[in-house]
Amino acid sequence: MKTRFNFTNRDIVSIKGFTREEIDYILEIAAAFEPLAEKGSDMLKGKVLAELFFEPSTRTRLSFETAMYKLGGNVIGFAEPGVSSVKKGETLADTVRVVENYSDVIVMRHPLEGAARFAAEYAHVPVINGGSGAEEHPTQALLDLYTILKAKGRIDGLNIALMGDLRYGRTVHSLAYALSLYDVKLNMVSPELLRMRTEVLEDIKTRIDVTEHRDVEDILPELDVLYVTRIQKERFPDLGEYEKVRGTYKVDLDLLRNAKDDLVVLHPLPRVDEIAVEVDSTPFAKYFEQTRNGVIVRMALLALVLGAIKE
Amino acid sequence: MKTRFNFTNRDIVSIKGFTREEIDYILEIAAAFEPLAEKGSDMLKGKVLAELFFEPSTRTRLSFETAMYKLGGNVIGFAEPGVSSVKKGETLADTVRVVENYSDVIVMRHPLEGAARFAAEYAHVPVINGGSGAEEHPTQALLDLYTILKAKGRIDGLNIALMGDLRYGRTVHSLAYALSLYDVKLNMVSPELLRMRTEVLEDIKTRIDVTEHRDVEDILPELDVLYVTRIQKERFPDLGEYEKVRGTYKVDLDLLRNAKDDLVVLHPLPRVDEIAVEVDSTPFAKYFEQTRNGVIVRMALLALVLGAIKE
Amino acid sequence: MKTRFNFTNRDIVSIKGFTREEIDYILEIAAAFEPLAEKGSDMLKGKVLAELFFEPSTRTRLSFETAMYKLGGNVIGFAEPGVSSVKKGETLADTVRVVENYSDVIVMRHPLEGAARFAAEYAHVPVINGGSGAEEHPTQALLDLYTILKAKGRIDGLNIALMGDLRYGRTVHSLAYALSLYDVKLNMVSPELLRMRTEVLEDIKTRIDVTEHRDVEDILPELDVLYVTRIQKERFPDLGEYEKVRGTYKVDLDLLRNAKDDLVVLHPLPRVDEIAVEVDSTPFAKYFEQTRNGVIVRMALLALVLGAIKE
Repeated sequence: MKTRFNFTNRDIVSIKGFTREEIDYILEIAAAFEPLAEKGSDMLKGKVLAELFFEPSTRTRLSFETAMYKLGGNVIGFAEPGVSSVKKGETLADTVRVVENYSDVIVMRHPLEGAARFAAEYAHVPVINGGSGAEEHPTQALLDLYTILKAKGRIDGLNIALMGDLRYGRTVHSLAYALSLYDVKLNMVSPELLRMRTEVLEDIKTRIDVTEHRDVEDILPELDVLYVTRIQKERFPDLGEYEKVRGTYKVDLDLLRNAKDDLVVLHPLPRVDEIAVEVDSTPFAKYFEQTRNGVIVRMALLALVLGAIKE
Repeated sequence: MKTRFNFTNRDIVSIKGFTREEIDYILEIAAAFEPLAEKGSDMLKGKVLAELFFEPSTRTRLSFETAMYKLGGNVIGFAEPGVSSVKKGETLADTVRVVENYSDVIVMRHPLEGAARFAAEYAHVPVINGGSGAEEHPTQALLDLYTILKAKGRIDGLNIALMGDLRYGRTVHSLAYALSLYDVKLNMVSPELLRMRTEVLEDIKTRIDVTEHRDVEDILPELDVLYVTRIQKERFPDLGEYEKVRGTYKVDLDLLRNAKDDLVVLHPLPRVDEIAVEVDSTPFAKYFEQTRNGVIVRMALLALVLGAIKE
Repeated sequence: MKTRFNFTNRDIVSIKGFTREEIDYILEIAAAFEPLAEKGSDMLKGKVLAELFFEPSTRTRLSFETAMYKLGGNVIGFAEPGVSSVKKGETLADTVRVVENYSDVIVMRHPLEGAARFAAEYAHVPVINGGSGAEEHPTQALLDLYTILKAKGRIDGLNIALMGDLRYGRTVHSLAYALSLYDVKLNMVSPELLRMRTEVLEDIKTRIDVTEHRDVEDILPELDVLYVTRIQKERFPDLGEYEKVRGTYKVDLDLLRNAKDDLVVLHPLPRVDEIAVEVDSTPFAKYFEQTRNGVIVRMALLALVLGAIKE
């Protein structure tokens, strides 16, 4: 492969750190990695990934592990802070400066905004943000883009809706920003209380067309991609409001009767009941394939930051 | 090795899914794998096993991990449900459909009957039951058979007793069924409250001779194999009954004075006090070797379902 | 490399099991392993390390894992006893006799004195003590020596202070013994309540000069190595005493103004506030490098006990 950009030792903290050209390059590398997910590779043999998960995760953690193993590397770390020396009062800076001596790359998930950036400033090895606070989840955004690209053959020109919790979900923040680098029409569908924050919206609107909606029915027939997120009941001060909204956003066969034949339905998972199980067996459903794409994209990212891709 | 049966992509959910010929074949493959447990192999290089342990386990979990590593593969997963997205309300079907995208084979332990079969129906990768409910533990049954075969040179013609908790122990259910495919004499030794359930017993009796006993002393002199299980105190409504029974079933040197010289004593472990530690250093004791055989048999099973054994 | 000593299958339970010549040999092997920490090796391919951590640990656990992975081996085990069959009432002896059948070497951390020695007596595979009770942490002592040797080019002739909790810290017990095999001047700096126990001190004094101090200021200008440990608040019956002592032992730039230019400051980590963060960027600070040396030394130890170093 041609290495158009040098990602060696680069931190992946925010999707905002990437240009569109860089993202396109990552997606190209990912596509080239597809066969390696089947047959494995020794590309990262002898390399160690440290996972520091200060918040539990199944998907992100396991898919980074598989990505590392498929490339011949290994994984250390903790899946919850209770087992770690954090309990003994160690600062995050110290934990990072210790763990970088055990590893070649760090993936960190943390409940606090900015934690990954802070870690990246201390670490000499590359730090990948596996989700921090409510703001950032850059590798999820990249795998979402990759899934859209694989399913539709392109990103430019698509009509895309993000639906559900647009306020607290870190996934949709990173994804909305990433999509704004492309020539897409973006529809934000959410209850009033879960609208995307003004500052995020204003930033995106400087680059692309964005419209906001309470209902999905009106725009559904025009959509190419419907990205659904879980609405977390506990966010709502008024449970009646929650119940009303919840029904509105159930994606089922009835709703999808008005969709384009090639509409792609995505979800970062876990879902609870935003998408009816009857949708799973339809061609619309790409949310399980999405998780497989997460492995591919993370393989590409690990290989890139560890300098394993040579011209 | 000659591949007489095709196990590629096959689920291992219940011992009842196997014919005697298939079991014999698996035990043959296991024997051929013995040297690989010492020197290792690259047979499963690039392959990833996902362990979904919804119930804690040391033995089964660690021996599957070692089996995978000895064949050059890797392992992801969780050792207890608390760390996983199950906490976020994800269904088992969804967890399986996500994890199959991160892995080439799944091993699952679950407190509920039928959970492994349910998972196998959803997964496109092979699912191995690492113990579900009180009914099934097929890989334990296979390693028990392998241990008997290694120790005695044959299974047919043996006089075998299963002793202890025959009602709730999933190990003895799977093992009793497996043994009923061979020409053995089977003795069930248990307190009244922990007798094997009638439906299990009736099924086994259609194929082989089975007798039930309260005491082991009478049949001990004739036994070739004594398989001991832990009696769980908490099962007994009447503690006095428990205390009486408990004493009856302590396997110690005094009891073993009347045993054949080549009696084999097995136990799925962990033991509490069913077998006195003084027995550990006698030639009767094969229960620690049994755990080593677990690695061998699981190596064979992983290689088989992953299609790594070629003619 | 020349193999002057045979460590194959040897347990590493106590630093007292080593002669000075053996320790020198281990440090030489470690130095030769430095390049392997960068590029990796297949030296332990097919080998499995079992970690039995009955007490949580980040540093020791993760650095053993990285050491194993860098040499091509793999790791199984548990990071806390809750996930293991210990909960089902299994004895330590049984756990060890099971796990040795899954592994080629065992690393154990345990809250009780003597637990590692007990395990070593039962296991047929080598057992490495990863910290037991308040007495022993032999691999930490070896990595401390290695760090001193790397930083100063020698151990003999150095003036060394151990400061902080000398009573309960297992690290300083093992290190003090190890240093007493060399021609060093040893200074023990601690509050009255945390003085090193008389029996340990008397033993060390049979070999080298040892002096005890309440304050570090007087001896600081002469020191080559200052080894700081965390004082655990909960040890003090009188909190006023703790507060007074705590201030005395803060290593900061002000204190270090009177130090030799090439003073080496070490700490087993995690630190809380015994060393000010302003010291981190000075040439004195070797405590993060110390963690990296832990990987190197443990690589050497694993290769040695697994017989992977051939003449």
